[in-house]
Amino acid sequence: MTGNLLYEGKAKRVYQVEGTPGQLVLAYKDDVTAFNGEKKDILPGKARLNNAISSHIFQELHERGIRTHFIKKLSATEQLVHQTDIVPLEVVVRNTAAGSIVRRLGIEPKSALTPPVIELFYKNDELGDPLMNDDHALLLCDVTHEDLNAMKAQALEVNRQLIDLFTASGLELVDFKLEFGRMAGSNNVVLADEISPDTCRLWDLETRENLDKDVYRQGTGDLLEVYEKLMTRLEASL
Amino acid sequence: MTGNLLYEGKAKRVYQVEGTPGQLVLAYKDDVTAFNGEKKDILPGKARLNNAISSHIFQELHERGIRTHFIKKLSATEQLVHQTDIVPLEVVVRNTAAGSIVRRLGIEPKSALTPPVIELFYKNDELGDPLMNDDHALLLCDVTHEDLNAMKAQALEVNRQLIDLFTASGLELVDFKLEFGRMAGSNNVVLADEISPDTCRLWDLETRENLDKDVYRQGTGDLLEVYEKLMTRLEASL
Repeated sequence: MTGNLLYEGKAKRVYQVEGTPGQLVLAYKDDVTAFNGEKKDILPGKARLNNAISSHIFQELHERGIRTHFIKKLSATEQLVHQTDIVPLEVVVRNTAAGSIVRRLGIEPKSALTPPVIELFYKNDELGDPLMNDDHALLLCDVTHEDLNAMKAQALEVNRQLIDLFTASGLELVDFKLEFGRMAGSNNVVLADEISPDTCRLWDLETRENLDKDVYRQGTGDLLEVYEKLMTRLEASL
Repeated sequence: MTGNLLYEGKAKRVYQVEGTPGQLVLAYKDDVTAFNGEKKDILPGKARLNNAISSHIFQELHERGIRTHFIKKLSATEQLVHQTDIVPLEVVVRNTAAGSIVRRLGIEPKSALTPPVIELFYKNDELGDPLMNDDHALLLCDVTHEDLNAMKAQALEVNRQLIDLFTASGLELVDFKLEFGRMAGSNNVVLADEISPDTCRLWDLETRENLDKDVYRQGTGDLLEVYEKLMTRLEASL
């Protein structure tokens, strides 16, 4: 990608391209990290898989009436999106207990969370992305009550659509993380960032085997093989 | 106290007394603990001070129209209260940044929090009393949305009344922790537990010196002297 590098995160670079004001290019990286960057590797092919899966999912959400920053897939590892100012919080939706909530609150692993639990985390690597409540977000994240309600309502709608999408591929949507942003000239929050096995926990509906980044976190499988398998299953249900 | 010991906590024993159904005796202990019990001491005289200060504050709240479990002070170290089933969450109100919120969210110490920030913590020593959001409380604490809203509204009203009370004694109410319970036969949550320098941060309005348990946590002063000074200041403004 040639363009003006605006931002480099752990998994993506963000470029501004001349002649397309208000639009950005997300270029996925082959880097994989876990535990706030304590474990990291470069896995050639990961960029292509994350871009393919996230593009597929955002395209599906678009067709299901959900407004997002996504415009189109540009190349194997890049996509074009509307430029947004990212709200510095992660919105996590949990349908089944796994990961940090199990340790933090002593919840039985794999238990159903009904209704789904929404959590907000402060996007701040230095602080280790701490859990926040609404009052904290209002204080620190330049959001209003209306923004928080809109993000939570969108997150639950995305949850309903993703459950529908993944169930068709024989997958259980355990939990996932969303980020939102504001387009220039608009106060509305719109779904941004990526939705991929880096940001979702996905289990086989029957065996409950992981088809997500937990295989890397826990060292229980080959990330590229698992992401390839996931992509194949998603494509098969089109 | 002779009676049936129902519960022993870090700072109080709770007794059921024959002939007074629906009522309990709270007997304060001379024990002081900090950091989830990692630091502890016995300070003879602390029970008397906590009982005097908490009784004084609950009496003031009663006179200002706030419903609580408090009935009356029984003796130097004991008080009579209505029996409640305690909701297993701590409701913290913060007017000024101090303590865990500073470390957790990187907020500038001593900065004003406007409007006040409310936090919920899961009463669970084994898990270290973790921060919770409303969804977690609904899942784990046998409460409804209405209970949470009622507890938060009561916490903010208590905050207004306590600010008024403490300002008259030249004190800044930095933050405090409340607990709520349900009386037998009622679904309403009512203010319970204690309000004392064990559960509040109180600073001198001018010098911002601590008049609370932080002198013990931080080893910066004599707890009994400080609690005695606080009691004297509260009584002087009657």
